[in-house]
Amino acid sequence: MFKLMILLTKKPTMSDDEFSQYFLGNHAPIAKKIPDLRKYVVNVVQRPPNKEPDYHGVAELWFDNREKMKRAFASPEGKLTQKDTENFAVRTMTLFIHEHTIT
Amino acid sequence: MFKLMILLTKKPTMSDDEFSQYFLGNHAPIAKKIPDLRKYVVNVVQRPPNKEPDYHGVAELWFDNREKMKRAFASPEGKLTQKDTENFAVRTMTLFIHEHTIT
Repeated sequence: MFKLMILLTKKPTMSDDEFSQYFLGNHAPIAKKIPDLRKYVVNVVQRPPNKEPDYHGVAELWFDNREKMKRAFASPEGKLTQKDTENFAVRTMTLFIHEHTIT
Repeated sequence: MFKLMILLTKKPTMSDDEFSQYFLGNHAPIAKKIPDLRKYVVNVVQRPPNKEPDYHGVAELWFDNREKMKRAFASPEGKLTQKDTENFAVRTMTLFIHEHTIT
């Protein structure tokens, strides 16, 4: 399995609640239609006391392999998902992951 | 469930292979002994072409709740794990997470 982690920084005009509501209520229903998506997890970062977190959310997406992931993001659903990210995030950082479940 | 994501930046003196071998072969066996650890995943970042990634690894740790997590890291096993992190990472960033499995 091939895993993507996408670290998101929210639009500064949104509150934490607005960000997580958009992420879960608007974005996730679009993203989950990406073809060949095997698993999809939305991680909402809890604000630490007295500081701005570097990231406000982390999306995790699993595909069978890297080639299927590339094709999925080139699909209409993949493009729509990427476009919608601009509605709640100012910045994203994508990491390609080899996942090892230890316990 | 309460989830921690810990983003790690490797020691610059280590190669990517040395980092992942230490993370999986030395560090993970220590960390998995942390009390009340419900699930533990080690994510090794695959190097993108022609650039240094911002992070080289991401640890994910699940506990029943925040209080149990705090007690776990205050235990001898928790302290040993934190101390061992210095052997392969120069920097860590910890995110407290509300996890939502979408699909």
